[in-house]
Amino acid sequence: MDIKKAVITCAGPTQRTLPLQTLVDRQGQTNTALSIIAAEAVSAGIEELGVVIHPGDEQAYALAAGPHASRITFIEQAEALGYGHAVHCAAPFVGGKPFLLMVGDHLYVSAREESCARQLIDCARRESCAVSAVQATRESKLPYYGTVGGKLAAGRTGLYEIDLVMEKPTPTQAEQQLIVPGLRAGSYLCFFGMHVLTPAVMTALAAELEGNESPRKVTLSGVLNMLSGRERYLAVELNGRRYDIGNRYGLLTAQLAIALSGKDREEVLTGLVDLLANQPRA
Amino acid sequence: MDIKKAVITCAGPTQRTLPLQTLVDRQGQTNTALSIIAAEAVSAGIEELGVVIHPGDEQAYALAAGPHASRITFIEQAEALGYGHAVHCAAPFVGGKPFLLMVGDHLYVSAREESCARQLIDCARRESCAVSAVQATRESKLPYYGTVGGKLAAGRTGLYEIDLVMEKPTPTQAEQQLIVPGLRAGSYLCFFGMHVLTPAVMTALAAELEGNESPRKVTLSGVLNMLSGRERYLAVELNGRRYDIGNRYGLLTAQLAIALSGKDREEVLTGLVDLLANQPRA
Repeated sequence: MDIKKAVITCAGPTQRTLPLQTLVDRQGQTNTALSIIAAEAVSAGIEELGVVIHPGDEQAYALAAGPHASRITFIEQAEALGYGHAVHCAAPFVGGKPFLLMVGDHLYVSAREESCARQLIDCARRESCAVSAVQATRESKLPYYGTVGGKLAAGRTGLYEIDLVMEKPTPTQAEQQLIVPGLRAGSYLCFFGMHVLTPAVMTALAAELEGNESPRKVTLSGVLNMLSGRERYLAVELNGRRYDIGNRYGLLTAQLAIALSGKDREEVLTGLVDLLANQPRA
Repeated sequence: MDIKKAVITCAGPTQRTLPLQTLVDRQGQTNTALSIIAAEAVSAGIEELGVVIHPGDEQAYALAAGPHASRITFIEQAEALGYGHAVHCAAPFVGGKPFLLMVGDHLYVSAREESCARQLIDCARRESCAVSAVQATRESKLPYYGTVGGKLAAGRTGLYEIDLVMEKPTPTQAEQQLIVPGLRAGSYLCFFGMHVLTPAVMTALAAELEGNESPRKVTLSGVLNMLSGRERYLAVELNGRRYDIGNRYGLLTAQLAIALSGKDREEVLTGLVDLLANQPRA
């Protein structure tokens, strides 16, 4: 399974400025979120990036992509018709091959030498099938994520065979259908924002988008749920964390997590203590 | 002295994306840096904002200004000819009246009810003259700032009569010419990024720009130094702090300082402790 292309979705009306935000990366270099996400993909052997954008954003994104700009094909999502539709806009770009799917509002801190994207692609290559990265997540966060149900793959840690995918399940739905043996009570396997998918997902998205009056109702989770009944589809817990920069204080949290795991750890910890000790008082 | 207009300079080639960065303000609202700066000016009674931009940035800035967009006149600095030139681009906008000058890469946390800009404008009104806000700053930071020399205004705390202004002085220059009685040894009065200036500064900038072969060499500090010999010109220490978001980790530090002084203090402190306690380990 050869994975050379990644799709990064950045067209969401409330998310389109997030990839343009500036952070300091683990190497201490100032970079945009887009450039950090692109570097994550490239670190996993990706050669071409298809970036799905809101019409008119290409110039700002090309600037924000820095050294990765030459790898990027921009794909405009002409209308804001939801996430399933956004992914399908990249169908001609992926051209019938397996691909890495990422989102423009998540950053990652790996706890290993290899990046999170690298860990995921290595897993997909080894297993030769679609794999979604997941993170054990508390019940209270279910309203934010696609969630999978399934069982541990025989004799493996952190690898699951997926039976069911639900978009933003209620706690009751989760308790009835998504409990995964081996996880802590009240924890579920929620999407990490990173998948290796087979071309079948594009075919299925096309069929759903055509058959549905409202394209907005076609979710990637819904289509992945259908695929889980048709082809081998795994979930993997990676050794690392995701940071959603679209949350309130999401950029702050991501920047701190990146800095504390990188070369500037001491400098940033010192600055933090200094700031806490020297707050202005009236 | 009636001050209704503010000029905000945002055209610097390395600084032009900073006002577009997103932060959470003291009220807990997600906003761009530009919108937070505009709110600071408006809190001080400013009614019209002249924003000096790099050509082509107007659309992104108008979007980033949010509710303040209707107060803004965009002024393009056609060529990157330095800071003195950028300020002078706003001469037709200020139209012969005193004005507030701010920079697009500084955010402020006031230690009082009134914002930093409000404190400065109140001071300029009271004194009826040009006033630059300053902050006592350690010698090691002199390479980053315009610095003033002078003496305490009679019987006043934190108010100084300016004799001399130097742009980025060397430690030797500072020690010989910029020591201000009453400050801690090795501390100097450096610009805070906020001034109330009289129209004389525009006339003087015009004369300097015309008479100089290289407009880049005309600094605001140089012109302010000339004016300090001609008209009453004060420096004031405000009750608050400046945060330069153009520094490495400047956005992180500004966001933390804003959050720790605002309504989300508890939430952010809790998040900070959680992050420090739960860092991923391989």
